[in-house]
Amino acid sequence: MEIEYADRIKGLKASAIREILKFTADPSVISFAAGNPAPEAFPVKEIAEITADIFANDPIAALQYSVTEGYPALRTRLKKFVREHYHIGNESDDLIIMSGAQQGIELSCKVLCNEGDVVICEVPSFVGSLNSFKSFNARLVGVPVENGGMNLEKLEMALKENPRTKLIYVIPNFQNPSGTCMSLEKRKGLYDLAKKYGVMILEDNPYGDLRFDGEDIPSIKSFDEDGIVIYCGSFSKILAPGLRVGYLVADHDFLQKVVVGKQAADVHTNILAQMICERFLANYDMETHLANLKQIYKKKCGLMLSCIEQQFNPAVKHTVPEGGLFIWCTLPDGVDMMKFCSDAVQKKVAVVPGVAFMPYEDYASQSFRMNFSTPPDEQIIKGVEILGRMTKAL
Amino acid sequence: MEIEYADRIKGLKASAIREILKFTADPSVISFAAGNPAPEAFPVKEIAEITADIFANDPIAALQYSVTEGYPALRTRLKKFVREHYHIGNESDDLIIMSGAQQGIELSCKVLCNEGDVVICEVPSFVGSLNSFKSFNARLVGVPVENGGMNLEKLEMALKENPRTKLIYVIPNFQNPSGTCMSLEKRKGLYDLAKKYGVMILEDNPYGDLRFDGEDIPSIKSFDEDGIVIYCGSFSKILAPGLRVGYLVADHDFLQKVVVGKQAADVHTNILAQMICERFLANYDMETHLANLKQIYKKKCGLMLSCIEQQFNPAVKHTVPEGGLFIWCTLPDGVDMMKFCSDAVQKKVAVVPGVAFMPYEDYASQSFRMNFSTPPDEQIIKGVEILGRMTKAL
Repeated sequence: MEIEYADRIKGLKASAIREILKFTADPSVISFAAGNPAPEAFPVKEIAEITADIFANDPIAALQYSVTEGYPALRTRLKKFVREHYHIGNESDDLIIMSGAQQGIELSCKVLCNEGDVVICEVPSFVGSLNSFKSFNARLVGVPVENGGMNLEKLEMALKENPRTKLIYVIPNFQNPSGTCMSLEKRKGLYDLAKKYGVMILEDNPYGDLRFDGEDIPSIKSFDEDGIVIYCGSFSKILAPGLRVGYLVADHDFLQKVVVGKQAADVHTNILAQMICERFLANYDMETHLANLKQIYKKKCGLMLSCIEQQFNPAVKHTVPEGGLFIWCTLPDGVDMMKFCSDAVQKKVAVVPGVAFMPYEDYASQSFRMNFSTPPDEQIIKGVEILGRMTKAL
Repeated sequence: MEIEYADRIKGLKASAIREILKFTADPSVISFAAGNPAPEAFPVKEIAEITADIFANDPIAALQYSVTEGYPALRTRLKKFVREHYHIGNESDDLIIMSGAQQGIELSCKVLCNEGDVVICEVPSFVGSLNSFKSFNARLVGVPVENGGMNLEKLEMALKENPRTKLIYVIPNFQNPSGTCMSLEKRKGLYDLAKKYGVMILEDNPYGDLRFDGEDIPSIKSFDEDGIVIYCGSFSKILAPGLRVGYLVADHDFLQKVVVGKQAADVHTNILAQMICERFLANYDMETHLANLKQIYKKKCGLMLSCIEQQFNPAVKHTVPEGGLFIWCTLPDGVDMMKFCSDAVQKKVAVVPGVAFMPYEDYASQSFRMNFSTPPDEQIIKGVEILGRMTKAL
């Protein structure tokens, strides 16, 4: 039988970059294409201790059905964490646990957007989120990211032109893929525009605790007095992505709708993983752990940057991130970016072509994304050397 | 700001039964309202051993990002398991891991149904699945379950009347909530009708391995030569629901679409939980474990049945399940079922009113569901005694 799929899924096509990314399974390929934490960043000993303790003292709680909103003790600890780290803690807000930030993003769209409603996103932006929005037949409208974040004039134009806009999706800290941070001024301007046009903001902050240079910038959620900001956090980059534990902080009534959606999606998040996160926050020093992560990533980022500066053709521009996991490189006009990325993978180095981060495939890009957190140092050195030779031959 | 929610979520209202169910949080209430495995059914020692071994020998794999399709070793073991237990193993099929069966059900609908498409379901049926379908604005059409399963004449009428039907959702083994099994004849008739009308079948089988009486009946998937059956399995009732590990077996191309949906939903299922399931299948005797579970549930079911037979007014009918977790009781015509359930909770016994399992709230029901797996034996005895007095006073 020929299966007739839903329209929302027909729109999610396998993209051209899959052809490049599939080469990263080849162990002889140096991959700068991932977004994985460094293996040495995982507190293995601590998580092993916590897990042994859970099975010794509270095994049934870790194995039985649990509540959709999330493990109560973890929700309490996280409320304290976001208050201390991001000054988030409005009385009308609540916090619920998600199966990774990805679920928080997907369900926010499911709860808010009818088919054909508009989500405004940064260009470039995180492809996983863009696919979530598309999977509900939301229409994406892109606004370019500049140094210091979204172009607010273009954002207002987009809001005027698209009265069906429901959501503005932003990654203000060490944006994936561009690595840039949104300035405080732009955060405030964005908030004011969202309020003026009556739309919600989805503030995705997976990398905010990985700042290794410069000063923290207040979260958009920290000045949300109107209940219009949905804040999305995650343990993936600060503890372990395999646990799939994220969370949403937002208006209480909005989160009640998300809970209804989550009940229908996966009942609740794996409870052992939630208990591991809770015990880590309760019994170990998260601040020392984060300081250690920042040191690891500062070193790896510094290594990749110094290699780039030594090896790359100076006509290739690159960002100098103050945190996060990515460097964003831009080839000179006239160079065929997709061919460059294809050639690189032939030479056994994988990077992600910029078109992968565009809301639709017809957006052009001269850029590619490089990840410094996953590869070992010797691969960073060797891989950048190979790319460097390619840039000099352009 | 007044938030304008998506239509699909507006339709998911908190139902009248929540008022009853919220009393089950009160520890003085005997709850026959849950669907949880018995605490003594969890192989705590084995899971603790497995987890310690994973963190000793393979910690990074358990903490790092993984692939959307699921842990490859678990997929291989499960293919063997469903072949041995259910004669499932068509060459054009594949098997992927889901974050619980709930996700398999939700994504099957997401991939197949446009808004307004029809899902035909049993009446009564599992409310979690019905809410998943509604959460995509699919239209539910109910077909009554009789002894031996769905009424096939009414099913064919429903198929004729609803040309936009995409999916028939059934729980053939120890159906939740009615506890009945679909006969082999009906399974074959259902398959033929689905084929004739070009619709898919979603076969949900969480309880199939909990048969403690009678003979196994072949799964619908076992005679699927046309790639029209989506088989949904789960570790929730045979290992531990807190792990949130389920799976789909279906046509390879269909599952590729589900994988795209899952990537957008939660990237992948918690990998530690997947490794625990794999190691349990690999290193422990699942058949002995299942035999033990069946013994536990046979005993608890037998206890509840004998209490019901001694205590209940004989005018109250009840099923005699051969497996699963539930007994379905039906009050005489003219009795106010909702009032009976409300009165019961006032007397500190919670059961689930039948209307909770109807596709829409305007379906009437004279029945209520009783769960025998969760409560300790002394609560079964005491709770049925209280309900029994109520039935005699009718």
